[in-house]
Amino acid sequence: MNYLVAQPLPEPDRSLRSDPASRTNSQPPHVVIVGAGFGGLSAATALAGAPVRVTVIDERNYHLFQPLLYQVATAGLSPADIAAPIRGILSRQKNARVLLGRVTGVDAVRRVVLLADREVSFDALIIATGARHAYFGHDEWSAFAPGLKNIDDATKLRRKILTAFERAEDETDLVERARLMTFIVAGGGATGVEMAGAIAELAKVAIARDFRAIDTTMSRIILIEAGPRLLPAFPEALSAAAKSSLEKLGVEVRLGQTVTECDTSGVMLGEEKIAGGTTIWAAGVMASPAAQWLWAEHDRAGRVIVEADLSAPGYPNIFVIGDTALARDRSGAALPGIASVAKQEGRYVARLLQSRFAGKADPPPFRYRDSGTLATIGRGSAVADFGWMKLKGRLAWIVWSLAHIYFLIGFRSRLVVAMDWLWSYITFERGARLITSGDTER
Amino acid sequence: MNYLVAQPLPEPDRSLRSDPASRTNSQPPHVVIVGAGFGGLSAATALAGAPVRVTVIDERNYHLFQPLLYQVATAGLSPADIAAPIRGILSRQKNARVLLGRVTGVDAVRRVVLLADREVSFDALIIATGARHAYFGHDEWSAFAPGLKNIDDATKLRRKILTAFERAEDETDLVERARLMTFIVAGGGATGVEMAGAIAELAKVAIARDFRAIDTTMSRIILIEAGPRLLPAFPEALSAAAKSSLEKLGVEVRLGQTVTECDTSGVMLGEEKIAGGTTIWAAGVMASPAAQWLWAEHDRAGRVIVEADLSAPGYPNIFVIGDTALARDRSGAALPGIASVAKQEGRYVARLLQSRFAGKADPPPFRYRDSGTLATIGRGSAVADFGWMKLKGRLAWIVWSLAHIYFLIGFRSRLVVAMDWLWSYITFERGARLITSGDTER
Repeated sequence: MNYLVAQPLPEPDRSLRSDPASRTNSQPPHVVIVGAGFGGLSAATALAGAPVRVTVIDERNYHLFQPLLYQVATAGLSPADIAAPIRGILSRQKNARVLLGRVTGVDAVRRVVLLADREVSFDALIIATGARHAYFGHDEWSAFAPGLKNIDDATKLRRKILTAFERAEDETDLVERARLMTFIVAGGGATGVEMAGAIAELAKVAIARDFRAIDTTMSRIILIEAGPRLLPAFPEALSAAAKSSLEKLGVEVRLGQTVTECDTSGVMLGEEKIAGGTTIWAAGVMASPAAQWLWAEHDRAGRVIVEADLSAPGYPNIFVIGDTALARDRSGAALPGIASVAKQEGRYVARLLQSRFAGKADPPPFRYRDSGTLATIGRGSAVADFGWMKLKGRLAWIVWSLAHIYFLIGFRSRLVVAMDWLWSYITFERGARLITSGDTER
Repeated sequence: MNYLVAQPLPEPDRSLRSDPASRTNSQPPHVVIVGAGFGGLSAATALAGAPVRVTVIDERNYHLFQPLLYQVATAGLSPADIAAPIRGILSRQKNARVLLGRVTGVDAVRRVVLLADREVSFDALIIATGARHAYFGHDEWSAFAPGLKNIDDATKLRRKILTAFERAEDETDLVERARLMTFIVAGGGATGVEMAGAIAELAKVAIARDFRAIDTTMSRIILIEAGPRLLPAFPEALSAAAKSSLEKLGVEVRLGQTVTECDTSGVMLGEEKIAGGTTIWAAGVMASPAAQWLWAEHDRAGRVIVEADLSAPGYPNIFVIGDTALARDRSGAALPGIASVAKQEGRYVARLLQSRFAGKADPPPFRYRDSGTLATIGRGSAVADFGWMKLKGRLAWIVWSLAHIYFLIGFRSRLVVAMDWLWSYITFERGARLITSGDTER
């Protein structure tokens, strides 16, 4: 176990070549991976069987299938359907161990990762800590407009949404009732579009028969996007399809508008006040503070601008991948913050490390192979862009469903989610409508 | 909606006969049910189609299949597998509405139920508020030895159990590590037996491969029962079978011993100190405070001693059922606090009210029809007592599984739970090993 304790090397040596003399003992080299999201976990599993020791550090004990998190927030799926314990995923990988803890910094010279109560030394480090919500200098909005990044965010949001209907049912003032039944989603990217569609479905179908005093189908769902169109990462035709699908579900789509103020009563869009009971923030993300740890150059969203081999400039043995990194494709465009980019980056770094430790030449620079982008808009409708083919409507939804089920970790999750979807597709039910923890007494 | 507002009757009238003149308007009589557990919900659904208005009040928005709660606490099932939204269950029952709120008292003379911010008037009241943990005058123990009554208790306990292993993995002091891997269950009734068996299974099989520094199969699970045998509600032969099944799973069973002290470091059994990292309280319950609301006679566990028609003495229009009531069978023995008693009581009161409102004679006094008692002891083993037949081992487990799946509310839940069980039976996996909310950072 003593490899968890910092062992300052006699001479800070930034080269990564496998040089037994540079290590104080004969143990295989130690690869530390911070973050067990898509990027970190794909790097870890790609190192299975390699002659290295792998330590995965995460502050949570589960890997999350983030693309379906909005389904937990809108009571369609249970947390365990889309989250798997990291230890379980790596239990059969003999060279990997898992450490539950929060990383607070990196000492690149001494080659140690800093945690609250200890240090972990590394021969190579992969930083895959993802991103969190960004409120563009208005962090005080986070109390009124929560975002959606982990299971706790999702169950809190589920509670907020379901409690809003409970309070509306119980409210006799018609103006206040209408406010409680107004849901504002800030941000028209994939998360915002999926949230807005799912809330509309929840309100207009799933719970339509549950209440007596209110008509939940009269709920107002407003999606606000600062740019000129929804889903800016997709081709324009699909953006238009998404907009019209959402409008068919009864969602008000506001393009070219920006939230300028936000509190418990709703939001301001410039001069216009929108009274709302629930605001959800899907408007921006900020990379986790890896750039500060490394004193590295970063873009406005805090992403570390990495080298062609995904290493941090000046540190050939420290790699930054996924939403924490700004990597570029051959045209020089920044790669999007999506799962498939993070996974390919993780596998690339694992391959590169294996070459280096074996004393072989580096593989060619990282290149992203685009396998398509998908977003769903409520029940039975989606948009898909595979480059060579663009889909919308029901067929895109079927592709979306199959792809998401396929990429879920674990056969059991795949079965459960497939069954849950089939079930709610047939019955319109959303089974996970539980208000848990927090007071429901108002 | 104004029937939710208290309408003091011109003359306090304790008779329940349907007398239109005694009501201020021509609306059908109003039956208020407090608590949506097995008792309250079976009363509510048995009143479907009857010429009454039904209001179900609960402080949580879900009905809970409590017999499987220990499965959530030990990461076998997800909350939504065993909990269903009350509104969903009653959504098609036109004469029923649901009110989310906490009842603080009853004014039996004015015939109103008191909530924090309002009153709800009733023509007949059914109190089915269940029971909570009892620490026998040591309420301060609740911080160290949590009990298991609702979903939040279960997810908290799941977090506590899983975090104990995480901390043990990270602990280098061997004594402290052993303490963290010691689990103490106080109380040898069905909940205690099921919890102890499930923790043993979790530690010795499900997560055996997950850790590197610790060997979870060396975990110590201790079940403490003050009485001379486990499962006192079962015949002696089955108690012995349960004990030997648990011991085969590696659980230490301590009979005739009582917890005399309890803190973060473990428990005292008289002079003996047991150092443990996690203590779970399954030793006693106390009925909710309905007896205080009604100034009614009650037993030591706080249960209202009800009349033969399950009404509270002196209040023919107020009924107390389930774990809140002490009803007796024909031999004078108290009926046990189990689901089937509560359900039969709920249906009985519903039938009685329909007779009275129709001006007919009351049905004969309530009589419990025993359909058997079941308890499970880990994977593939259980005990069952049907009176005419006693089962143990694998056959009892199959009966137990089928019965529990059958009684789950909702076809979807039945499917999911059946599949989850089949899956974990084949693979030994426990899918819901998520540490959510609360700090995992120590």
